[in-house]
Amino acid sequence: VAIVSDSRVAALYGRTLLEDLRRLGLPAHLISFPRGESHKTRETKARLEDRLARLGFGRDGVIVALGGGVTGDLAGFLAATWHRGVPFIQAPTSLVAMLDASIGGKVAVDHPLAKNLIGAFHSPLAVYADTDSLATLPRREFNGGLAEAVKCGAIAKASLFRLIERHREAILKRDSRAVVRLVLSAADVKATIVSGDEREQGRRKLLNFGHTLGHALEWASGYRLRHGEAVSIGMVLESRLAVREGILQAGVASRIETLLRRLGLPTAVPRGLSAEAVLSAARRDKKARGGSIFFALPEQLGRHAGGPAWVVHVPDRRIRQILTLPDMMP
Amino acid sequence: VAIVSDSRVAALYGRTLLEDLRRLGLPAHLISFPRGESHKTRETKARLEDRLARLGFGRDGVIVALGGGVTGDLAGFLAATWHRGVPFIQAPTSLVAMLDASIGGKVAVDHPLAKNLIGAFHSPLAVYADTDSLATLPRREFNGGLAEAVKCGAIAKASLFRLIERHREAILKRDSRAVVRLVLSAADVKATIVSGDEREQGRRKLLNFGHTLGHALEWASGYRLRHGEAVSIGMVLESRLAVREGILQAGVASRIETLLRRLGLPTAVPRGLSAEAVLSAARRDKKARGGSIFFALPEQLGRHAGGPAWVVHVPDRRIRQILTLPDMMP
Repeated sequence: VAIVSDSRVAALYGRTLLEDLRRLGLPAHLISFPRGESHKTRETKARLEDRLARLGFGRDGVIVALGGGVTGDLAGFLAATWHRGVPFIQAPTSLVAMLDASIGGKVAVDHPLAKNLIGAFHSPLAVYADTDSLATLPRREFNGGLAEAVKCGAIAKASLFRLIERHREAILKRDSRAVVRLVLSAADVKATIVSGDEREQGRRKLLNFGHTLGHALEWASGYRLRHGEAVSIGMVLESRLAVREGILQAGVASRIETLLRRLGLPTAVPRGLSAEAVLSAARRDKKARGGSIFFALPEQLGRHAGGPAWVVHVPDRRIRQILTLPDMMP
Repeated sequence: VAIVSDSRVAALYGRTLLEDLRRLGLPAHLISFPRGESHKTRETKARLEDRLARLGFGRDGVIVALGGGVTGDLAGFLAATWHRGVPFIQAPTSLVAMLDASIGGKVAVDHPLAKNLIGAFHSPLAVYADTDSLATLPRREFNGGLAEAVKCGAIAKASLFRLIERHREAILKRDSRAVVRLVLSAADVKATIVSGDEREQGRRKLLNFGHTLGHALEWASGYRLRHGEAVSIGMVLESRLAVREGILQAGVASRIETLLRRLGLPTAVPRGLSAEAVLSAARRDKKARGGSIFFALPEQLGRHAGGPAWVVHVPDRRIRQILTLPDMMP
């Protein structure tokens, strides 16, 4: 067994897991890498491979991704290509990893020119989420997870959206019962959507709500915006786009924005990010096909627009309008 | 369309294909890398990825692997992980690529510590083999392809083995009719074996005849032995092992060795390669599980031993004996 963690999680939980596994008589190793999205690279993967090779880690090994979304993506991709694929287990320690990133088998590293550009589809054997580990999660990262939960609710499950609205205070205090309900409900949306659509041909595209512009914002900000923060702003912008396209009622867009703001998430494009920079990043993103940009948009709370196509094409001109509009909503 | 070729094949056939595709109105690019197995690395893959990224090569692209086995492995793995997988076409220009490497979807790069250590299973959309391109193939490489053809015959198709015995002269002269028959017959063995066993759980293991020790020899020789040459020696050694294990008649082992020698292939371990170096390389190979070494062995011409297990375990001690035996056969 090879446990893969970033330096911080390795220190917090890695040693304990390592000792537990060894106590069970399993030959286990802990290999770590420097913390942060900027290390989700081919170079980090190569260094982990060098470690595995020196350990003589064979086809009969199992990799455990212990950590947040970066660790899951990186360790999952490591497992996907090691000996052409060895099994791996997701052990998410961050909220976003628990309810989103650890489920569905999408693994990847970033390229200097685009996020998740190089990767694979490799489903974990199992996902073990210990919500106790959320206690040590920095606030910005916890909130980033909330953005993904709001997304699942807004596009696919109104009851989840209402659960977050109703139990907002308890969730923000990381009350154990409220958090477990949140994780189970959101993970269920993710699992339902991805099962039967592992390769993102159809329904899975729904999960891109807020992500088409979110990824572009994240990239254009040089990753100063965290993923969840960028997705929060992306949802606000894409909801407005849906309103302008006549797909969504303005009241629902405003309800989404209000909840995100109350959760402490950013809802406006940071100064200094030009519409053109964001548009150009969105065009390069893998969700663009033949240069056209598609969106997963809600048509009401918990229900997507676009019918069986799942996504809606919006011409660049109208995307640019949304990106350059003054902040209209209170 | 991105055509991926090594520098030599790019000059010989790449430009022509590029112009043909462009004449058809397809946006096509030719990207090349330095020739040779020593360039089948993560670093070369990263450089090709950088090229694709700068081209804005999207999810809707197709990669064409134009070249030998190295190109197929490298370009196939590039396709397997680009945007988590884009389609690719194998256009093999070497004999070994036509009848073996291009079929079955195994793609990979080498690691300094082991061949094909990092890779994926990614089936090509199609395999287009133009046997005219064999005219420019260096002799050592052509002969390497013959070793794989002998392997297919010896372990799975006696009629193919006899075809090579009977038409040896015509094949060595690269007579077009003889070569097409050879390629079709051997490719058919490969395709039959791999279909339904894409992930090498069962029948596909048969194709490892000669490869367990072959890969080890190749690695231990620092790749001075070409793949086909190492496999040729590997088949001789593994046939002897089968004889010593009481699995195969000595006459068949000798017939395999004779054919390989008449095809101009090496049949003895080069001086200076120690049994321990080869054994240790074999143990690190992915065909070893939990440190034990397994072999695909013929029990008669065209039929494998091991029954439904496909492979046979041989203890290190008896492998060492074969590696240290003086060359017994004439």
